[in-house]
Amino acid sequence: MVQHKFLLNEDQMPTQWYNIVPDLPEPPPPALHPGTMEPAGPDDFAPLFPMELILQEVSQDSYVDIPGEVMDIYRIWRPTPLFRAHRLEKMLDTPAKIFYKYEGVSPSGSHKPNTSVPQAYYNARAGIRKLTTETGAGQWGSSLAFACAQFGLECEVWMVAASYRQKPYRKTMMEIWGAEVHPSPSEVTEYGRALLAQNPDHAGSLGIAISEAVAEAAPHDDVRYSLGSVLNHVLMHQTVIGEEALLQMEMAGVMPDVLVGCTGGGSNFGGLSFPFLREKLKGNIDPIIRCVEPAACPSLTKGQYRYDFGDSAGMTPLMKMHTLGHQFVPDPIHAGGLRYHGMSPLVSHIYELGMLEAESIGQTECFAGALRFARSEGIIPAPEPTHAIAAAIREANRAKESGEETVILTALCGHGHLDLAAYESFLSDDMVDYDFSDEALADAMAAVPQV
Amino acid sequence: MVQHKFLLNEDQMPTQWYNIVPDLPEPPPPALHPGTMEPAGPDDFAPLFPMELILQEVSQDSYVDIPGEVMDIYRIWRPTPLFRAHRLEKMLDTPAKIFYKYEGVSPSGSHKPNTSVPQAYYNARAGIRKLTTETGAGQWGSSLAFACAQFGLECEVWMVAASYRQKPYRKTMMEIWGAEVHPSPSEVTEYGRALLAQNPDHAGSLGIAISEAVAEAAPHDDVRYSLGSVLNHVLMHQTVIGEEALLQMEMAGVMPDVLVGCTGGGSNFGGLSFPFLREKLKGNIDPIIRCVEPAACPSLTKGQYRYDFGDSAGMTPLMKMHTLGHQFVPDPIHAGGLRYHGMSPLVSHIYELGMLEAESIGQTECFAGALRFARSEGIIPAPEPTHAIAAAIREANRAKESGEETVILTALCGHGHLDLAAYESFLSDDMVDYDFSDEALADAMAAVPQV
Repeated sequence: MVQHKFLLNEDQMPTQWYNIVPDLPEPPPPALHPGTMEPAGPDDFAPLFPMELILQEVSQDSYVDIPGEVMDIYRIWRPTPLFRAHRLEKMLDTPAKIFYKYEGVSPSGSHKPNTSVPQAYYNARAGIRKLTTETGAGQWGSSLAFACAQFGLECEVWMVAASYRQKPYRKTMMEIWGAEVHPSPSEVTEYGRALLAQNPDHAGSLGIAISEAVAEAAPHDDVRYSLGSVLNHVLMHQTVIGEEALLQMEMAGVMPDVLVGCTGGGSNFGGLSFPFLREKLKGNIDPIIRCVEPAACPSLTKGQYRYDFGDSAGMTPLMKMHTLGHQFVPDPIHAGGLRYHGMSPLVSHIYELGMLEAESIGQTECFAGALRFARSEGIIPAPEPTHAIAAAIREANRAKESGEETVILTALCGHGHLDLAAYESFLSDDMVDYDFSDEALADAMAAVPQV
Repeated sequence: MVQHKFLLNEDQMPTQWYNIVPDLPEPPPPALHPGTMEPAGPDDFAPLFPMELILQEVSQDSYVDIPGEVMDIYRIWRPTPLFRAHRLEKMLDTPAKIFYKYEGVSPSGSHKPNTSVPQAYYNARAGIRKLTTETGAGQWGSSLAFACAQFGLECEVWMVAASYRQKPYRKTMMEIWGAEVHPSPSEVTEYGRALLAQNPDHAGSLGIAISEAVAEAAPHDDVRYSLGSVLNHVLMHQTVIGEEALLQMEMAGVMPDVLVGCTGGGSNFGGLSFPFLREKLKGNIDPIIRCVEPAACPSLTKGQYRYDFGDSAGMTPLMKMHTLGHQFVPDPIHAGGLRYHGMSPLVSHIYELGMLEAESIGQTECFAGALRFARSEGIIPAPEPTHAIAAAIREANRAKESGEETVILTALCGHGHLDLAAYESFLSDDMVDYDFSDEALADAMAAVPQV
């Protein structure tokens, strides 16, 4: 029997999240208060997040217990399967062994509920009434709506206007779980109204939507904001992916030579890779660990490592990260979840320490890879992890040339059932690649504050 | 710890399909040749199906081994989880214990690959080049496209024209897996051209699409037809659902008092219920087993039990079944997979033997139940199993009145990620219920041959 799927029992689910920060040779630079430019303390984050999440954000503990109420909801879809891609390997005629950890079995179809559930839990426990957030293609907004429904919280979502108009079904999904959804820019906030006054058909961006969600949360005692990627505590919640994958690779009897994951804000990548990085730091394994980003939004491979805002309006604390500039608006690739100007400060820091590699891939190569994947492995990937699939195929083709049995591990962080228009575009030869413009980058960087 | 999910290991997967026919007190009536009206033999089915499936269709063996190549593909998503709906029970404030077997984890998001994979396998082994089929909302067509991609078969799908126009994403899904998709009626077949000549905007129906798919398959030696429900061998393939569920209920330490499943052609219902019916016939358990059908297409509760065609043009063998008449066109409810004029002959026969109950429910009650389900259990049901959910909620409400801890088992046979327009219709109060018309039934029955 060919083993295709490596399954864990519920009692093998990790009971703690892993915090990589104490294990790093240098601590990551602190966030800065946007007014004073001094290091931001827990109180500076209090208008946005409940104290338990703020303490996780700055924690020096290597492990944080996962609350029982969160475990109960994780069990709806966790542990998730790890697959050996025998059929894809055969199609590629490669000696490489390809494994993928699949997070598309969650209610919203992606890895995002791994953090939306604990975020909703800690907010509910702090007596918060409503969470606000932004969403691009809708993966994060729907995941937070699901989590809020579980804890009786209201949920208000600003969805990038272009996606709101193009992807009505993700909006419906959020509404099924009881969320209120606005196109962003919206008439609801001052910043939104100002942008609409300039351009009533404004397409919006993630940075703008963050500004609107923050503007609604900050002034109200019983409203908080929730972010689906980028921050330390978000990446920490996602480490359940990598902890499970470590156990599953042990079941498979091999460890990865190469680990590749797609990076937008970095949460899926950090979630998969940090537990493997811990084992690498301990000297137990020695994989190459590589980020894959879209050629149209290459924060790690083309951006600058410096302090920048998380949102377009400049309302958030400043974070040191690889950035294309907080006012950079990426070209409209289908992987909406990767269209963010910055990279997680933690991933950026670890990249600067030389512990990670990075490459960028254009979307037509990604969808060509995804089609081969769907026809061999059966599962249709979301646009974001098509980047991870394409990178894994590049690596498998290198293995074919060298004849090496490279063990490749990647993350299939969501299914593409709500993204079929992107495949339609590819199948009908409508899909284009975008040239990343150094001029656009220079313009956007000019607006980044000098710290 | 509250146990929410009952998981099996891969080595607990059933290795045989269960054939209920030999265990029944009377054998089901035979199919009839449409020309001679004599009982149809294996050779009469040979233009449509490979001999191994025909032999399964008329098999008197209680168990049929599942081929290793089929098991390998089943392992992409099987065994599937069985859930205890603790959160829904709490929301309903019921003493009932509700369990649901979830098939939405398959690549196409429904139970349909349980039979599309073996059907593709046996056809490939018989040297067939191409499979043809019909599809309504697209669940079956996409499942067959997936299976054909696994075995290198071509796949040609006739999709009910109304769905083809309303649900472009299911078409894209089929194309991702390499299928060719036509709206039905189509210009490709004589029957389709005749219908289009009468009405170029013809909305189509499942019965018409079956006629077109059969017309393409029958004349060619290397082309066969594939049906996603109704027939004995299809229901037998689906018994992997019920066999797993039996083991999982044993893990949960209880057996169902009531088993409810939605019925269109009967494959998901038969798949879940037949193994439980076997145990009931043995005297091991004694559940009520109930079919739930849409009020707009009530073949069991309003149809007549008599010989009728499986398709609109009258090309298939005649089968004795509960039918609304092969030319009946059901109102356009969102549960496209339940819009079929007939019921599986096997389910019909067992219903006539008094071993099953049946009820019908209108779609607004179904979606109201599905919304409660999604907000408590997290998973968004496909329109078809909203009927099963609504019936389970009715039963749970009865348990609340009586104070009994009724154990309810139902089947969530697919997720609704490609059916969000139906939810949008419900959320915006656009959804209507249809009155089933006795006049329309009488008209349709008049076209059914007298046997």
